[in-house]
Order: sequence, then structure tokens, then C-alpha cells
Amino acid sequence: SASQDLDLEILKTVIEQLDANRIRENLRELSKEPHLATSPRDEALVQLLLQRWQDPESGLDSARTTEYEVLLSFPSEEQPNRVDVVNSTGAILFSCRHSEENLTGEQGGPNVVPPYAAYAPPGTPQGPLVYANQGSEEDFKELQNKGVKLQDSIVLTRYGGVGRGAKAVNAAKYGVIGVLVYTDPKDINDGKSLPNETFPHSWCLPPSGVERGSYFEYFGDPLTPYLPATPSSFRLNSDNASGFPPIPIQPIGFKDAQVLLCNLGGNLAPADWQGGLGCDYNLGPGFRSNGTFPEDRFSCILKGEWAVPRLMFPSSQVNVSVHNRLELRNSSNVLGIIRGAVEPDRYVLYGNHRDSWVHGAVDPSTGTAVLLELSRVLGTLLKKGTWRPRRSIVFASWGAEEFGLIGSTEFTEEFFSKLQERAVAYINVDISVFANATLRVQGTPPIQSVVFSAAKQVERGRAGSGVGDLSGVGLHGISAPGSSGLSIYDNWIRYYNRSSSVYGLVPSVGTLGAGSDYAPFIHFLGISSMDIAYTYDRSKTSARIYPTYHTAFDTFDYVNKFLDPGFTSHQAVARTAGSVLLQLSDSLFLPLNVSDYSETLRSFLQAAENLRVPLEQHSISLGPLVTAVEKFEGAATSLNQRIATLQKGTSDPLQVRIINDQLMLLERTFLNSQAFPEERYYSHVLWAPRTGSVATFPGLSNAYSQAESTGHEPAAWAEVQRQLSIVVAALEGAAATLRPVADL
Amino acid sequence: SASQDLDLEILKTVIEQLDANRIRENLRELSKEPHLATSPRDEALVQLLLQRWQDPESGLDSARTTEYEVLLSFPSEEQPNRVDVVNSTGAILFSCRHSEENLTGEQGGPNVVPPYAAYAPPGTPQGPLVYANQGSEEDFKELQNKGVKLQDSIVLTRYGGVGRGAKAVNAAKYGVIGVLVYTDPKDINDGKSLPNETFPHSWCLPPSGVERGSYFEYFGDPLTPYLPATPSSFRLNSDNASGFPPIPIQPIGFKDAQVLLCNLGGNLAPADWQGGLGCDYNLGPGFRSNGTFPEDRFSCILKGEWAVPRLMFPSSQVNVSVHNRLELRNSSNVLGIIRGAVEPDRYVLYGNHRDSWVHGAVDPSTGTAVLLELSRVLGTLLKKGTWRPRRSIVFASWGAEEFGLIGSTEFTEEFFSKLQERAVAYINVDISVFANATLRVQGTPPIQSVVFSAAKQVERGRAGSGVGDLSGVGLHGISAPGSSGLSIYDNWIRYYNRSSSVYGLVPSVGTLGAGSDYAPFIHFLGISSMDIAYTYDRSKTSARIYPTYHTAFDTFDYVNKFLDPGFTSHQAVARTAGSVLLQLSDSLFLPLNVSDYSETLRSFLQAAENLRVPLEQHSISLGPLVTAVEKFEGAATSLNQRIATLQKGTSDPLQVRIINDQLMLLERTFLNSQAFPEERYYSHVLWAPRTGSVATFPGLSNAYSQAESTGHEPAAWAEVQRQLSIVVAALEGAAATLRPVADL
Ligand SMILES: [Ca+2]
Ligand SMILES: [Ca+2]
Ligand SMILES: [Zn+2]
Ligand SMILES: [Zn+2]
Ligand SMILES: [Zn+2]
Ligand SMILES: [Zn+2]
Repeated sequence: SASQDLDLEILKTVIEQLDANRIRENLRELSKEPHLATSPRDEALVQLLLQRWQDPESGLDSARTTEYEVLLSFPSEEQPNRVDVVNSTGAILFSCRHSEENLTGEQGGPNVVPPYAAYAPPGTPQGPLVYANQGSEEDFKELQNKGVKLQDSIVLTRYGGVGRGAKAVNAAKYGVIGVLVYTDPKDINDGKSLPNETFPHSWCLPPSGVERGSYFEYFGDPLTPYLPATPSSFRLNSDNASGFPPIPIQPIGFKDAQVLLCNLGGNLAPADWQGGLGCDYNLGPGFRSNGTFPEDRFSCILKGEWAVPRLMFPSSQVNVSVHNRLELRNSSNVLGIIRGAVEPDRYVLYGNHRDSWVHGAVDPSTGTAVLLELSRVLGTLLKKGTWRPRRSIVFASWGAEEFGLIGSTEFTEEFFSKLQERAVAYINVDISVFANATLRVQGTPPIQSVVFSAAKQVERGRAGSGVGDLSGVGLHGISAPGSSGLSIYDNWIRYYNRSSSVYGLVPSVGTLGAGSDYAPFIHFLGISSMDIAYTYDRSKTSARIYPTYHTAFDTFDYVNKFLDPGFTSHQAVARTAGSVLLQLSDSLFLPLNVSDYSETLRSFLQAAENLRVPLEQHSISLGPLVTAVEKFEGAATSLNQRIATLQKGTSDPLQVRIINDQLMLLERTFLNSQAFPEERYYSHVLWAPRTGSVATFPGLSNAYSQAESTGHEPAAWAEVQRQLSIVVAALEGAAATLRPVADL
Repeated sequence: SASQDLDLEILKTVIEQLDANRIRENLRELSKEPHLATSPRDEALVQLLLQRWQDPESGLDSARTTEYEVLLSFPSEEQPNRVDVVNSTGAILFSCRHSEENLTGEQGGPNVVPPYAAYAPPGTPQGPLVYANQGSEEDFKELQNKGVKLQDSIVLTRYGGVGRGAKAVNAAKYGVIGVLVYTDPKDINDGKSLPNETFPHSWCLPPSGVERGSYFEYFGDPLTPYLPATPSSFRLNSDNASGFPPIPIQPIGFKDAQVLLCNLGGNLAPADWQGGLGCDYNLGPGFRSNGTFPEDRFSCILKGEWAVPRLMFPSSQVNVSVHNRLELRNSSNVLGIIRGAVEPDRYVLYGNHRDSWVHGAVDPSTGTAVLLELSRVLGTLLKKGTWRPRRSIVFASWGAEEFGLIGSTEFTEEFFSKLQERAVAYINVDISVFANATLRVQGTPPIQSVVFSAAKQVERGRAGSGVGDLSGVGLHGISAPGSSGLSIYDNWIRYYNRSSSVYGLVPSVGTLGAGSDYAPFIHFLGISSMDIAYTYDRSKTSARIYPTYHTAFDTFDYVNKFLDPGFTSHQAVARTAGSVLLQLSDSLFLPLNVSDYSETLRSFLQAAENLRVPLEQHSISLGPLVTAVEKFEGAATSLNQRIATLQKGTSDPLQVRIINDQLMLLERTFLNSQAFPEERYYSHVLWAPRTGSVATFPGLSNAYSQAESTGHEPAAWAEVQRQLSIVVAALEGAAATLRPVADL
């Protein structure tokens, strides 16, 4: 019936049926083999997903694949990428490993792609080595200030601080000709670096582990911006496609990095550039005169003729040989749909990528394992005839995320109009479990309330535990999360919290960058999105991310032994995300609290207030922005009051639909395709990348920083005013969408 | 109730109550004084509209104004623009009139703005005169080929062929320093040019009449593209705003043009450059040696010392003095709303501009007179409680249209999100009566069926006649349109028709350019739009437009005596547009036949087939386009079948809403903000301006022309493929929007 609403008994059933052991078995299957994008195993998993979603007992209404021809980047099989130290005659003194050490029998297979920097151009630059910290703009400025010669050098950088591709972009501006990247034990292992204290003896990254990754600066298929990469689509010529790193880059393990870094000459690097390799980090350029290869501590492959420790001559240089190749490949998304009973034209999307760098047990299979368990539970209810959601549910398994969110981006390009018209929200669960401590959610403000509600309902517990306070059904949590007896919400608030001016202390929901497939949904399409996971106790580790991220050591055993042995964190994520999904698909009124945007706007406005004086000096007034924020707040508050009133009576289906359209479409109103002409896909005026230091609206912050740095350049201050006007227009438009629909 | 549908009795009542005499009285009031945009009289009319729409007995639910600060262009009051012939010593031999002749007592008032070219830059260029026909690119190429020196010349052009601003843009490319424009009697008066055969003795343009107009190349406020021109908005510096004519231009009457043109030297102009001034048109440059001012035939203002006919020396030059000034002015729109009873969040918009160049009886007041009568009739039913539409109706009176659709464009910028979400259609009635022969409609294909239905229902008759075949109400036309006894539809088909592959012979609905306020609605927002008017028997006149267009002779008497003495054509437009409005606002299912787009796509595809061979030579395949058109056709046909099935039963309100959303949003799916980066506001991939000669998708046609002309430039052919892919993606998206909503 048109008034079909969320059924708490169904919700309870779903939550209870989400099975930790089944998630474990999903993960075992998904991570059995490496499944790099477009590899045979990736294609086999496409079939696995199709089969699950077409299962007569637990499948969905329908499932299909969509295929795109996309530009990927792979290392050459014939010519491995190399990093060598060579002396002045060109003889190789030392070579870094070409692959990770085979510690568990899983790192040696033919399907383990050697470490490489995807989209780094081929080339064989050679030059003196310089240590450049994280390769940020400031890092290179500092090196320049210190008089370290960068022209024609190779720089060694550590992961972190800035994006992968940015290291090469920044380096090239200073004449650097090649870049090495490694993961410092201080940044990933809380300092641990020895073989017996790292995987498989602990969750730490082994000395030979190398983080792979995409170094493409944008997202989506590089050759088909704004168009779906169908076989017949227009393609840029790869020579004039933009966003690729300008110079060769190669990632290496920290054991090899130690040989290079601990032997560098030059001055001592600044204190905050030092790391966990057990030596002083110097800046270079070039090696110090008394450097050696320490025979016992390093596992680098030494050439036959250099089988004993050797002096590292100060004149030695580093040669980087990159032989990556660009290839057009067919990548598939798998889509599965449950048709909505009442509003089939409203879509709640739930997705994760399928492709991995190697076995990808954590990334992305912890997410896909949860996805499959959730679709199984819902599919079973559906096939039994017990349940059909009010709105349609679309499950998605994206291809080629690791190369730059390619499958999801092409999907948003192909289905742009339909999604713009009909998508209610996008739920992303990529890595579902980083660690066992607490829930972690990123999303736009309107999803906060539904996530809170879900997290209060369910507990992360031992097997058999489950459902918390589902008010009205009279259920209470059976067991405590871990051993604490708290709901997921009450546990969460202990780890991540903030003081809300509206609600007091609440868990803090993070903002969405471009770290996973939610990026095209929020930035390009303006669809309320979120990413849900279980994660660390930050007081116990300062690891950038889980240590084996994007390495050959990210395997099923790693998850099963170290990350989540009982799979209770997986289950907790499944329950939370499942509850969010069901609330979004089944509630009569969409559980998107648009009023929760007011806190964001207030905080942006408050930060902008710090600019009031300099802006006024350039005749730019914040008055219209203040007014626009107030209008938004008023409109959102009134809308919530109207909803509350309507919820008391029996609701006319069209009246509910009208309100729900306002809630659904609010996020769209923040898009402006003219706002950031240089930023591919980014059009959300609240969540576009902010590089300016003031924590306000990104366009305003960035333009202000730019104007400040150019002094009194009128065009730069004009851009500040333009960005301010864009924000004001967006907020006025947002308020208009929330106001009573027949108001002028 | 949720199933509220069109009430034919109400429709009949509305049609019958639309009163020709009231329209006449509206027109008398509206055109009583000149009401140039932002003038005191324009502001007085804002109050008149507000008063009408707030009338307790015949007003709407609410009415308000929205004000924008926009950049207009006016001639200087202190320094009139001048066009003089000067001899080699600089003495003035001859001056063109600064204003039109005061023939009816209405041309002499202080509020009659002298003829000028709005946005033409100030300047006083002087040079030998050249005749450049219509000032098209081809015209200048031809002059160059003939060896006529254009550098540093002044060119005289006649209106027509290309847009106003284009004449100056084209001229400047050849080094021309000033442009004159006039209206040739052949193009406007079917050759008539004598005082006693022109207004006030006939509808023809008098010898001193001058067409004013905007020479701005884009539309919208020139300083605030894509942003509403609020007082605090970011504004371009007018120095670096684009779209203004590059050189001074001044329009003159044909009597003055005759003095200049009939005295030109040089070779005889080509046959199709000749006109109706009663002499051979030569090309120049400069005057012929035996030229004179013919004393008796010309009314030019002669300087005291040259009060007798004089020789036109071959060395004489033309001096053009333009003193136009750019000014920021406050321009108002007036908005009036009738709240929808069932779907208040669906808007049917009906608008016209309010501002004129002088009295503007025809343009725009014939439209506004109809608008006021229609809003009176509907308002009266509303206030009586007899009727409230299913959807909301928004009436609009736009400001500053004559300067470039400014009020309507700023409106679409301010209410972008709301309109994109909720606008069902936009009905524009600018000049409602050009002449008395036939209906003329321009619009997008989905509006064809509702216009046909309206035109079949009503007749254009004498007073008292009116309603035709309203099937189900058993009404029949009372009297014939004019004396022919035909419905508006049956009359229309006699004048404008085409052979439809689907329907056989039907009236032909024209396409929408950018001639009036529908432009931002269709091109920028993708809202199904139309423009409705009564117009000429083209076998009786070849006038470009009604002869006094944009002159001081466009007065109430002109309409009342020559255009539509009985106001029956006004009434016919009111009835047709009123019926369209009511059908759109009140029908349970939206009367937008999306399937009628298939004919357009087929014709574009057929034209593209002519390019198949050259495209294949550049490895560009039409296959995906063919497939996409077929998909669209299939989806549209199926949707119509689903609608037909649903119409047989009692409809679930949400099911109807879902279908209506598909119908409403179809037009939006044709927008692509990346398609035409150079074309401000144009984003509709089917209706953007086509300059290529092949009558296919405009982006494809234009890119193909460009590629052809550049030979084998790979980047140009890449753009052809890009444009093809954009169209394919749009059509695939359109088909997806029409398919069953839960399909993948
Ligand atoms: Ca693409
Ligand atoms: Ca504007
Ligand atoms: Zn991932
Ligand atoms: Zn990853
Ligand atoms: Zn007009
Ligand atoms: Zn006009």
C-alpha cells in the first residue's frame, strides 16, 4: 500500500540473520586468488556475484553486468621495473627487490602483480638521490631553501601527507626526474620493522611489503571524462589525456628504502622528516662517503659480482627503470536490483568495488563479503515473499576502483539522468573492517541521523548477539560489543566524538573525500552518500591505514588472524549498514535529516567570519552569506516541523512524496557545474577539495588563499567574490527547495 | 482528491470567458506610454501587474516582484548619436535623423528613446562607406573577393539574414570601423516606401522608422553569467565582459539609408543584394561623383549652411558618432502563483516580458494583454472557489527582455534548482498577434499534442464565438474563425503544415531559437517550452516581421486599426494558450507526448546518414547513434502503452506521479553542461544553435562543418566523435528515463 512504512520486525529479522560465519566464508572465497581489475579471477568473481544475485532462493529480482572499455596501467611482464644503485661506470652496486618476499606461499604466484605505480610513465631516469619527506609542495620548498639541488635528481619520498600522484607532480616542478616511494615503519607499523615482529607474526607490514596504487590525479576512466566508456565512445588520445604523473615513479619496500636512505649524505633532515628505519635520515643529494650495504640486515638482490657488502660511493646514482604500459581493458560492474513495491523509481544504492591489487582480503573483500551476506538475507526474505522494500534497492559491485574509481564513475556517467532524478542515497562499504575498535562513518550531514539510529539499534557482539533497542518491538541487545556491553553507538562515541551545538556530544561523522566509490556519487551527482567501516583505537596505533594495505600480504589469514578473528566487526558493519539500507528503502518518510546541514553551514560561516576584515578591504561583504545560511536554517527547521505534523496524522501519499522529493533533492541543489572548471567531476560547492587553510566553503577558501598569495591581483579577488556568490546562490537554492513547495 | 483530472466544463468556461474587448482595454493601458526597461512607466506597469494579481476578486493566490541589478545600455541624452556625411574638410554635408518623425503625436515625447544599437560601444569612426548587404560572413567574403576595400571603412547593412550583433562581429574581422543598419522596404514593406502608403496610412513602416534592438551576443545580464544578478552578486568587469559588439553601430531609417545607398559609387552590388529603395545599390567604397541630396524626397536634417541640395563629393566620408552608455539598473520580474491543489510542487509556467522599446503595443503588450485576461479569468474562478488547478501555475512578467532576455534568464539562474526539479512546462506568449491569418507555434516535440488538442477545441471567431469540439462535453463551435468556419487547428494546417510519418498531414510546429524568454527555459534548464502567436498569411506578405517592430510606430492604434481590429486573433491566442495551460496544469496524466520526439530524432538521424561515408573515412561509426535512436523510440512507445493501460483503470496516485515524472524530466535528459563549453547557457544537445549545413544534431553538424573546413585536422575530427558520443549518451539517458522505472 502507498503508506507502507518500515517494519521493525523485518528489520530485526534482517539484523539477526546477518551471519558472521557466512561473512567469513564469503571472504575466504573472494580473497582466494589475486583479482586485479579485469584479470581472469576478477571476471570469475563477476560470475560469482551474478550467480548469488540470480539465486532462486536468495537472489534479487534481477542482476546484470555493465562493461566499460577503460584505460588501465600495468607493469611489463617482460621488463620488470627496477630500482638500482649504479656507480659512475654504470655498474649496478645494488638492486631493490622486484617483488615482495613470499612469506606465506601466497606472494609468489603468477597472478601477484609486482609493485608498481599505476599510470606512472615509462622511463629510465638516473641521478643523485635526495630525500624529500612526503613529497609535498612545502617539502620541496624546504629542500630548495636549504640549497639541496633538485634538478635532475631522483627523490625518495614516504607515503602520506599528500596523494600519490601529487608527489610526482610536485617533484617535477623542481626538475626532479624520478620518484621513489616507500612506507616508513614509523607511519605504518608503530615503528616495528623486523621480520619477526611483522606479518605473519603480527599485523605489521613486512620489510619487503610495498603499497601499490593509482597515481592518476582524477578519477574515472582517463580517456572518457564525462562520457561512459562504451567501446564506441569518444576517447582522448592517451598522449593528451591529463592527470598522469609527469615523471617515472616506483614504490619500494622499507627494507630497500633503508639501504638508500640510511646511506644518504648531505645535511640531516628536519626532525619531523625522520622515521623508523633506525638511522638518521639525511637529505642528500647523493650517498655519504662511508656508506655500505650492511650484509646481514638487508635482503636486496645483489648481483653475483657484488655478493659481498660493498662501499656505497658518494658518486653513485640511483637508476629508476619504469616500463609500465597503458592498456584498454574491459571492466565490468555487476548490478543487482530489488524492485520497490510502492516507489520503484526511488533508488537506494549500496555498493563496493570488487577488484583488488593482489588477494585484496581486506581491500575490498571485507566489504564485498558483507555486501553478499546482506544481499543474501534480503534476497531470501524477498524470494520467500515475506518482504519487498518500499523503494528499489540497487546493489553494485564496481570494477577497476583501484585504478581510480573507474567502474563507479562510468556508472554515474552512463546513468547520470536516472540517478539525478531518482537516487535517494548511496551507501559505500569498501574496507568494512580496518580494525575492531569502533564504527567509523563518513558522509554528508543528512545521513547522520539514520546512521545514529542504526548504530543505536544494534550491537557488535559475539556470535548470537545482535539487536539492540528497536523501540516499539521491545527488543534489547543480547550481548555486549566485545566485552563492553555497549551498543555500537555508545561504543563509537567513546572513540570519535564532537560537541554538537544541537545534540551535545555525538559520534563524529567524517567528510567524504575521494577515497572510494562514493566520490562520483557525491561530487559529480550530488547524491547523499556515506562510507561505513569498523576501525582502530587511535590511542593504540598511529598506523596511516592497516599495515598490509595494497600489498601481497593482504590475505584471508591476515583478516582471520589479526583483524577480526570472530568476524564480529564484520557483522557489526553488516548490521549497521543493513539497518541504514532498510531504513532508507522502507521508511515512509525518508530518514534524511536535512536540518543537520545547518551545523556544517554554521561552522563554514564561522570560519569565513575570520576573513571578514580582509574581504571587506577588497569590498567583499559576507552579509549575503550570513543571510543565506539563516534562510537555509529557517527552511530546514520548518520542513522538519511540517514532517512532524504530517507524521501525527494519516498521510496522503502524494504529500509524503512531495516532502521526500525535497529531502532527496536537497543534496543536488549544492551542485554547480560552473563552480570549479578545473576540477574534473567536482561540482558540490560544500565538499569539493579544499586546499586553502581556512576551514570554510572550499571554493571560497581556495580562492582566498590564492588571492592572499598573489597580493593585490584584482582577478584573484574577483574570483573570491565569484566563489562567494556561487555559495550564496547554492544556499538560496537549497533553502528554496526546502521551503513549502508552492511558495514563490 | 489525488485523482483530480481536467474538468472540461471548467475548460469551456475559461475559453468562453476570455474576452476580446478586455484584451483590447488591457492593451490600451499597457501601451499608453513608452515603457522601456527600468523606466518609470515600466515600474508603473510592475505595480499594475501586482495590483491585478492581488485583486481580491480576480487575483491569484499570491504575487511578488523579484528585482535584479542588470547592465543595460542607453544612448546619451546630452550627446545624441549621429550619422553624418562629411567632406574632406570635415564639414557636414548631410545628417541622418536623430529620431523618428512624429506622425501620430506619439513619436515626440520625452520618453521615446531615440533609435540606437544597445550595447554598441561608444566611438566616432569615420571612413568611406561600403554597402555590405546583410553583414553576414559570406557577404564580407564576397566584398573581399570583389576587391572592395573594407579596412577602415564604414559599412551600411540591412536587417535580416544574421543576428544584429553578428553584423558588427563579422565586419570587425575585416577591419571595418563602424556599422550602419537599416530596414529595407523590400524586406519589411513588400516594397512600399512612400509616406502615403505607410503608417499611419497602412501597417507599413514609415520612411523614418528605425528598428531598435540589443546587439549583445549572448542572453542574460552581461555581467553575471550563471549567477542571479542580485545587488551583491559577483560581476564581471564590463571591460572584460564578452558578447558586446566590437565596433560602433547605429541603426537608421530607410529614407536616410536611401540618401547614402543611392549615392554610393563603385560596382553594382549582386542582384540578391538589391532592395526597394528605388535605385541601383552599388558597393562603394565612397560616393559616386554625380551624387546629390535629392531635395524633395528626403527629410534629413540639413545644417543651416547646407539648406539646399548639394553635391555628394566622391571624397566624402561617413562619420558615425555613438555615445551609448552602460548603466546598472534595477529591473523587476513580477511573479503570480496559483497553488496546485494536488501537486503544488509541479509548476506550469506562463510568461511574457513587460518592457518595450517605445510604446510596444505589439511587442510585448499584445502578449501581456492576453496574459492579464487569462489570469483574470482563472483568478476569478479561483477566488469564487469554483476551481483550483491540480498543479501550481506560475504567471510571470519579465523585465528587460529587449536587452537580451535578461529578466527571464536571471529568474532561471535564481530558481535553477526548484525549476529543474519541478517545472512541467513553460508557455511563452510574447507578441501574441503579428497578423490575423493563422496560429503559429514553436516548441519542443512533446508539446505538439497538447497544442493540437487545444487548437482543435477552439475557434478564432467573431465576438461571441468560441468553443469547438470539446469531446465529452458535447460542445461545438459557435462561429467560424474569420469567415471560414474552421477550428484554429483546421485553419492553421492550411498555412503551416508538414507530412508526419506518424500522423500524416499536421500543422508544423517550429523549433525554439533564442528570440524570446523561452530561451533560458529550454536551453539552460531543459524545460519543455513553447511560444504561441497568431501570424501572417505568408502568401500575402514577405515582411521579415510586422513592419513597425521595435519602432516608435508600434502603438495601440497600429494594433487596433491594422493588426487585429476585432481582437479576435488575440482572443484566439488567449483561448489556445489558455487551453494548453489548463490541460498542463489539470490533467491527471501530463499531456506531454514524449513519443513525438521520435520524429525529430529520425529526421536528425536521416540527415546524419548523409555523413556516414565521410565519417567512416575518419573511423567514426553511426552505429551507436542508430541504436540509441531505436532505444529511444522503443522506450517512448512502451511508455505510451503503459499510460494507455493505466488510463483504463483507476489509477494509483503514486503510479501516475511516477509516470508524470518520467514525462516531465525527459527534456532535462537532453542537457549536457559539457557539450558546448563556448556557448553560454546552451546545453540542450538537440536544440543548441546549429551553424553547420547538415540538418542533424547541432553539435555533430557544427563539428562536422568545422572538421570539413579544416581538412584533415585530427583534433577537429576528434571533436566530431566527441559530439557524436555526447548525443548517444543523451539519447541513451533519455531512453533510460522513459523505460520502466525499476529496469536496470
Ligand atoms: Ca568516462
Ligand atoms: Ca545572471
Ligand atoms: Zn578499496
Ligand atoms: Zn584500495
Ligand atoms: Zn518581445
Ligand atoms: Zn522585442
